[in-house]
Amino acid sequence: MANDRTTRTTDAAGYRALARPGGERFVDVLDQRALPHAVETLRIADVRSAAAAIRDMVVRGAPLIGAVGAYGLALALDEDSSDRGLARAHALLDATRPTAVNLRWALDRVRDRVASLAPRERADAAWREADAIRAEDVAINEALGRHGLPLLRDIAARHDRPVNVMTHCNAGALATCGFGTATAPIFLAHAEGVPVHVWVSETRPRMQGASLTAWELAQRGIAHTLIVDSASGLLMRRGDVDLVIVGADRVARNGDVCNKIGTYDKALAARDNDVPFYVALPSPTIDWNAESGDAIPIEARAGDEVLRVRGRDEHGATTGVMIAAAATPALNFAFDVTPQRLVGGYLTERGIARNAAALRALYPEHHHDAG
Amino acid sequence: MANDRTTRTTDAAGYRALARPGGERFVDVLDQRALPHAVETLRIADVRSAAAAIRDMVVRGAPLIGAVGAYGLALALDEDSSDRGLARAHALLDATRPTAVNLRWALDRVRDRVASLAPRERADAAWREADAIRAEDVAINEALGRHGLPLLRDIAARHDRPVNVMTHCNAGALATCGFGTATAPIFLAHAEGVPVHVWVSETRPRMQGASLTAWELAQRGIAHTLIVDSASGLLMRRGDVDLVIVGADRVARNGDVCNKIGTYDKALAARDNDVPFYVALPSPTIDWNAESGDAIPIEARAGDEVLRVRGRDEHGATTGVMIAAAATPALNFAFDVTPQRLVGGYLTERGIARNAAALRALYPEHHHDAG
Repeated sequence: MANDRTTRTTDAAGYRALARPGGERFVDVLDQRALPHAVETLRIADVRSAAAAIRDMVVRGAPLIGAVGAYGLALALDEDSSDRGLARAHALLDATRPTAVNLRWALDRVRDRVASLAPRERADAAWREADAIRAEDVAINEALGRHGLPLLRDIAARHDRPVNVMTHCNAGALATCGFGTATAPIFLAHAEGVPVHVWVSETRPRMQGASLTAWELAQRGIAHTLIVDSASGLLMRRGDVDLVIVGADRVARNGDVCNKIGTYDKALAARDNDVPFYVALPSPTIDWNAESGDAIPIEARAGDEVLRVRGRDEHGATTGVMIAAAATPALNFAFDVTPQRLVGGYLTERGIARNAAALRALYPEHHHDAG
Repeated sequence: MANDRTTRTTDAAGYRALARPGGERFVDVLDQRALPHAVETLRIADVRSAAAAIRDMVVRGAPLIGAVGAYGLALALDEDSSDRGLARAHALLDATRPTAVNLRWALDRVRDRVASLAPRERADAAWREADAIRAEDVAINEALGRHGLPLLRDIAARHDRPVNVMTHCNAGALATCGFGTATAPIFLAHAEGVPVHVWVSETRPRMQGASLTAWELAQRGIAHTLIVDSASGLLMRRGDVDLVIVGADRVARNGDVCNKIGTYDKALAARDNDVPFYVALPSPTIDWNAESGDAIPIEARAGDEVLRVRGRDEHGATTGVMIAAAATPALNFAFDVTPQRLVGGYLTERGIARNAAALRALYPEHHHDAG
């Protein structure tokens, strides 16, 4: 059913990472920890639940956690709309994940929108602002997809076979309020009949590629193949990859890209094999205050995520298995930084920028302090 | 206990991948599928068990499967020492793993040694030849370690902190008859008091880094940290890696290196960050007939190894968990090829060669057909 619908409209695949049932004072999110084995919805009806959902990765993906953060602030103001309540909720939500800049951007935006209002007006205004952030993200996804679509069309026109796109982690509908960033051109291409095949790298340690991206592609009937993360170099060397499109958690002013751990390794392999390497980035992902990737904090998560792989056992239960001795020390940086020199194109809602200077030129409103 | 012993002698850590109890007509191997959670020995007493042990990865690692193959041929000749029996056993064993050239090398060596003998003399001769292959591998490990040791000593002399070595997969005692190839300089450095810390990349899909290399290092009391494979680029970019040492499954005449999937990605990251990248290779790993990496067959294993991660569950049982939907297509190349231009040094039993020409020069006896 879902597949049948997606052949007609790309944003109607039958699942949605975040929904606000008309006018209600709560939001429903897909519990991404249960995917792909179960589709479970979690209701978020207070700020503590919103913070926990972000921190525990019930929701993930830079644009989506920005929106959930915004709704979290609105929920907090429903309980306590004082200055102190606003500041405390902002701090609580901001502390959940350190790397994705969209979260801070969305929290600041809602706070700045309501801070000058009388306390009794703040909650309604926050809900409206959160709705606006969500609607803008949907529009950004669509614009990204339209700008990226010709990349796939052009490759398809030159070859009598499917376009081979490689992606990493999940920058799909499950990472956003719409139909994704890195996936947007893929979904649009598939919808208009361009043959596409996606190499999905599993994305250790949390396997977002295997559990989320592969699931999304299957839901939409798009051909795909799962690989281990470290197979990307070999596949590019074999000529099996036409282009790479990844998302971003934070992009510095100089064009350095902070994204899921392993993105840098893929960018290096792409460069070594002349494979175009694109980063899909909604503008809220750009941190205009970060001069370079060196200024971006890299979240280090618990080593247990490396030691224990979660999945479904033979009895259908979700469980974890230890892949090393329990006492093994493990380090778990969640992101890495890809230097701008390795990026072949920045795919934004305002078009494709071929380098960092061109990316900055797309956003002249942020240039007041540029040299 | 084991740790106490290893501080005195590097090849007495209390475990051995392969043993032939004095004069017996069988060999005992560690079942590497049970590690790190259980140390189980498997007796190999006929050629079918030898073939199964290689195919099912009870034993793995290029030098070790060469030795097990040699003993497998000896076991076959105990049953049937005719020309036909010899040819059939050779073919059975040769078909178990396609990429590691040591296997073919060892099988050919035993066959060529015994083929001209009377059938009744063949089995004893084969056992002697297999013993010789095993003894030579032990000696090669020791020579590799001696030649590699100065690399670590020199770094230690320049820094007031442990030497940070990164390795991939397992090229340790569990991959050989002795104390390993890539690990040999590490074990020797540790034994003489050079402070060493090893970054162990887990090595999806089968996790040989997590389950074997980390276990070996713990057995020997050597500091180490487990990482996901795709964290190697970030760690090198941060300056946290002094050198990389990996093993090899087959090296072509031009110096291209076929090794565990992900080796190429690490070589690229090393090059981008000026981290010395060494390949430890016993000479039986060199395929003098392969002009380049393009001539090396890359084993594609079952996709299920990608989809299902094996480990120990919370009840202590070894099981597998599905990390993606069961219907997800998966591709599972076990090896990749690192082009010779990315290799900073070939660590052999005859010394370190800085490039492919120097590597060839170390083995003049193979130069009869060189241009």
